[in-house]
Amino acid sequence: MINRLVQKIQKTKAPICVGLDPMLDYIPDQLKKKAFEEYGETLKGAAEAIWQFNKEIIDHTWDLIPAVKPQIAMYEQFGIEGLMVYQKTVDYCQQKGLIVIGDAKRGDIGSTSAAYATAHIGTVQVGSQTLSAFHTDMLTVNPYLGTDGVKPFVDVCNKEDKGIFVLVKTSNPSSGEFQDRLIDGRPLYELVAEKVVEWGKTSMDGEYSNVGAVVGATYPEMSRILRKLMPNTYFLVPGYGAQGGTAEDLKPCFNEDGLGAIVNSSRGIIAAYKKAPYDKFGPEHFAEASRQAVLDMVADINRVL
Amino acid sequence: MINRLVQKIQKTKAPICVGLDPMLDYIPDQLKKKAFEEYGETLKGAAEAIWQFNKEIIDHTWDLIPAVKPQIAMYEQFGIEGLMVYQKTVDYCQQKGLIVIGDAKRGDIGSTSAAYATAHIGTVQVGSQTLSAFHTDMLTVNPYLGTDGVKPFVDVCNKEDKGIFVLVKTSNPSSGEFQDRLIDGRPLYELVAEKVVEWGKTSMDGEYSNVGAVVGATYPEMSRILRKLMPNTYFLVPGYGAQGGTAEDLKPCFNEDGLGAIVNSSRGIIAAYKKAPYDKFGPEHFAEASRQAVLDMVADINRVL
Repeated sequence: MINRLVQKIQKTKAPICVGLDPMLDYIPDQLKKKAFEEYGETLKGAAEAIWQFNKEIIDHTWDLIPAVKPQIAMYEQFGIEGLMVYQKTVDYCQQKGLIVIGDAKRGDIGSTSAAYATAHIGTVQVGSQTLSAFHTDMLTVNPYLGTDGVKPFVDVCNKEDKGIFVLVKTSNPSSGEFQDRLIDGRPLYELVAEKVVEWGKTSMDGEYSNVGAVVGATYPEMSRILRKLMPNTYFLVPGYGAQGGTAEDLKPCFNEDGLGAIVNSSRGIIAAYKKAPYDKFGPEHFAEASRQAVLDMVADINRVL
Repeated sequence: MINRLVQKIQKTKAPICVGLDPMLDYIPDQLKKKAFEEYGETLKGAAEAIWQFNKEIIDHTWDLIPAVKPQIAMYEQFGIEGLMVYQKTVDYCQQKGLIVIGDAKRGDIGSTSAAYATAHIGTVQVGSQTLSAFHTDMLTVNPYLGTDGVKPFVDVCNKEDKGIFVLVKTSNPSSGEFQDRLIDGRPLYELVAEKVVEWGKTSMDGEYSNVGAVVGATYPEMSRILRKLMPNTYFLVPGYGAQGGTAEDLKPCFNEDGLGAIVNSSRGIIAAYKKAPYDKFGPEHFAEASRQAVLDMVADINRVL
């Protein structure tokens, strides 16, 4: 799977993914109004507004990008109706040829992680039938429970040609509280990184492993060290734009050949129309604003590579 | 919320919860056959079998126990259909007066954790309407992202009178890989425990805090230390029975008054009929086997308290 992502990044010359993390606040009033007229101010109404919003953004950006990263929490908050739109979004993106990275940060003890792997990137046996549930291409995974909590995801990557990104160093302000604490003189995130390399060796796909790492854009000095520790690990990099990371901050996440990282932007793309310089598009043309924001983000990142 | 749980534990004299983690393998053939006849060997067929299985177990155990702990992964693997049965199970248990602990181990950066909190224990605003999605009473939470990833859950606990259990020391074999590593001479799980206490101080409800901790039954020496570090924190204790923890192992999780912990058993209860001494009930009477297993588990734990 990671090789497919690399090829799509090379083809689009865009090492980015669009974070489809729709908050109701991001959605222009005209879409909400229409959805609420049809389905009421209900979970279904909210989900419908999200779906129409996503669809327009995908329609206006799919040809520029290799991948999208829907954050499942934003759908889960609208319950079953929200998750139906998550599923619909995954399907629609895959029909457009996009690689879908489900941002779910799942992780549990062995048998439960196996069920999560099945849910999101695997298949489930029902009687004589082999079926799949959310069937995203890649998934983010939380490592706090150790190897037996991550291994089931790696097994599914190997069986179904899928990929994962394991949280190593996250982009949020308090990520250092546990992740930066020193163990034998080295921060915890470096130990996690070494495990990611070890897990990844069993799932190589070309130059890189199907077992990638989440490395926040907001801590460039740490990215530099992690890049060296994990030469064959692809980085999924959150934190660009709205969270404060700049293109210069991202540079250490990449290898010298310009590969090795895919940078996510969510709010900065999908809610671009709400802020200068894209507010000139206005809420009616929100998806055109998103397209322009993608073009600008790609240019900004390629400038430093 | 935690006070409500304590009262229910005192009333039932059963400091346990039943883990509603249905694997298809656990479900007797007659239930699967019926469900597949009605809905085919489909995700809906599998979900229906799970629902009928859950319902019988709840009907046969609800009067003996204070709470259930459905593991959402086991439903998520059947996609939307599975999650509809998760929702139905939550509703049904709450109608029976049971406290429902959603075992979801969610956790992310601040705004995303807020969405997960909304999804599982909170409410969401849709236009003028305040709605809720999965509305469990309590939720398990992963702390790897630090305070700003946990705080949104605590805020919802305070707003909606709900509770969480934060992963501190998990029951699985490789939990020590990161959790036991020494930081300034003390294991990571102790640092997490101290944070749990700190977060919990803002959400006291009687003697205990709405911010609880997950502490595995499989490491009794560690439980003893954690019990002292977190005197006002309720422990959710997995690992009894099938995972190897005995009643003696559990004792250190409790305070001297016999409170302070709720012990989960999943396979040992819901799949009791598959193993001696409960196999005498046979697959036809699987739910009666579960009832007997609950009675035996309660007696076993009360014996050491």
